[in-house]
Amino acid sequence: MYYAVIMAGGSGTRLWPLSRTNTPKQALKLVGERTMFQHAVDRLAPLFAPEQIMVVTKADHIKVLASQTPDLPIENFLVEPEGRGTAPAIGLAALHLRKRDPEAVMAVLTADHFIADTEGFRKILAAAEQVAQKGHLVTLGIKPTAPSSAFGYVQQAESLGTEAGVPFFRMKRFVEKPNQTEAARMLATGEYSWNSGMFIWRVDRIMAEFERQMPKFYGQLAELEPSLGTPDYPAKISQIWPQVGEQTIDYGVMEGAQDVTVIPIEIGWADVGSWTSLFDLLPVDAVGNILQGAHVAIDTKNTLVMGGEKRLIATIGIENLVIVDTEDALLICTREREQDVRAVVKQLKQAGHTNWF
Amino acid sequence: MYYAVIMAGGSGTRLWPLSRTNTPKQALKLVGERTMFQHAVDRLAPLFAPEQIMVVTKADHIKVLASQTPDLPIENFLVEPEGRGTAPAIGLAALHLRKRDPEAVMAVLTADHFIADTEGFRKILAAAEQVAQKGHLVTLGIKPTAPSSAFGYVQQAESLGTEAGVPFFRMKRFVEKPNQTEAARMLATGEYSWNSGMFIWRVDRIMAEFERQMPKFYGQLAELEPSLGTPDYPAKISQIWPQVGEQTIDYGVMEGAQDVTVIPIEIGWADVGSWTSLFDLLPVDAVGNILQGAHVAIDTKNTLVMGGEKRLIATIGIENLVIVDTEDALLICTREREQDVRAVVKQLKQAGHTNWF
Repeated sequence: MYYAVIMAGGSGTRLWPLSRTNTPKQALKLVGERTMFQHAVDRLAPLFAPEQIMVVTKADHIKVLASQTPDLPIENFLVEPEGRGTAPAIGLAALHLRKRDPEAVMAVLTADHFIADTEGFRKILAAAEQVAQKGHLVTLGIKPTAPSSAFGYVQQAESLGTEAGVPFFRMKRFVEKPNQTEAARMLATGEYSWNSGMFIWRVDRIMAEFERQMPKFYGQLAELEPSLGTPDYPAKISQIWPQVGEQTIDYGVMEGAQDVTVIPIEIGWADVGSWTSLFDLLPVDAVGNILQGAHVAIDTKNTLVMGGEKRLIATIGIENLVIVDTEDALLICTREREQDVRAVVKQLKQAGHTNWF
Repeated sequence: MYYAVIMAGGSGTRLWPLSRTNTPKQALKLVGERTMFQHAVDRLAPLFAPEQIMVVTKADHIKVLASQTPDLPIENFLVEPEGRGTAPAIGLAALHLRKRDPEAVMAVLTADHFIADTEGFRKILAAAEQVAQKGHLVTLGIKPTAPSSAFGYVQQAESLGTEAGVPFFRMKRFVEKPNQTEAARMLATGEYSWNSGMFIWRVDRIMAEFERQMPKFYGQLAELEPSLGTPDYPAKISQIWPQVGEQTIDYGVMEGAQDVTVIPIEIGWADVGSWTSLFDLLPVDAVGNILQGAHVAIDTKNTLVMGGEKRLIATIGIENLVIVDTEDALLICTREREQDVRAVVKQLKQAGHTNWF
């Protein structure tokens, strides 16, 4: 059976004040009338039935996410007692899937990206399953639209053929976020894609890689395994997980793995990582504004105003600002400084203002 | 008897969103823990007993103002059915006072200015009463601290002597708001003061001037007079007032009046007309900010943040902004454009959003 595993454990502090400890980024309606998490689930149908969709998340978030997708079986939500990076999250999902179906193929997917061409995306996922069935560890690369320094890259080597019309390549190496100059140089070669964080593989193959490359973690999974589906499971995972080391799948597994292939794709993919990323995703008016909610804008340009219908926001003579208004907190930030939204959340945490982050 | 008449009929749209139709500027706590109106009343004691303090205001505002000054007798609040400028407001007060005490002296005072030296102010008012007793129409001029183009000016002529150590001068002329160059030229002569809108005179003297210079209005006052203190009064004033022409005391009376004198004063007077005026009145931090309410300010300069304790306001990378947050409306405006706050209120009125203005 083919399973989708949606990684939904992030918090998205750069999207404060909409994102909060108990309302992570993926639970927000940022584009359209559905939340990021709902979009991530919606676009899988009809390729995946609800029973084939798993979610890895934190205890804090399971309630809000599960309530947004009533069709997903609640037992398909896997809870990490605490986030330990992508490798343990994926390992936990693989462990559960192996018990369900030792021959399962799993697609590791994200909930914090926008995908315009959902049909194209499903075609890729279907083809990738076939590639994965052959034993390859498939990574989806996004064909870059700009020399971005915000993403990691994957470099492809020679072609390994096509599957259902989709070409795939041997993976040469992973590259950490480059600077702009390096990125431009890499783009010119035509060999690089953005690392999307999406992977497709057979569960037995990824488990074998965990066993070989992260033996300590594999031992911890093996210790957890007998409790799966028993009443002991919650106590057992709570005991084991704090001892699991932090690791990403890229460095923990993919860099040293065998048979890694890249499928470079063009599916209208966009990162929804920060407020200004919305300028690429939402309709912008003639003077560059995105204005949501009740507002009066006088001489206001290139500005994002996210508010509701109850509170009026009036802006006069401003440009290049991000203004996000919620019931109990308000952000006013220049577009250039939006990375510093994290610093606000950090200050609130340090000051113990739990209600505001 | 000496009476203070506080003109409290303004709305202060430039202080939106704190000022509203039902909560005018004078009802706001802009400086310290008392409202502008409370300050205007507080600074009169002990020169004026509560019974000697009259207030002219609009029906919309009487409730909020009266509740702020429980010591003032409610019958001392005179309500204009609609604002017709300063001349009719003063005429109405003079009519009521003449009935109480034909020999009354009245000080026409404002509620939308800050006065630092309240003791000095009372000394001036006491001296001005003596000058007024002699039949002079006294206008208080503010010794200018800068060649402001925001105020009207009064030009003084020769000295007429001193009263209790306070010198007073014959008034030469009123000058409408000049441009900056003119203002600088005027300042250099030493003959000009800002027109404060504060006047002291005998009720019989000002009534004689109304009769001579605004005979139609004086006739309307005479028509109203018999109803004073009777149950007919509300109906009578509601019938007469809409027919009263708009007029300011400066142009309707003072320019053509006899025996006008100026007392130029230095009492730490400041106009509280707009948000940026607060930068002269409230403590400013090392980087030029005034921050009130719950906030996190990162690289924020020369900015006014007026909020409360419930909603957090975070600002990053901004300068020269005015941010005023209320329960149901939020203003974000550059300091340079604050005059345009009026345009917001106008747009809200045109759109019929009565809850927001």
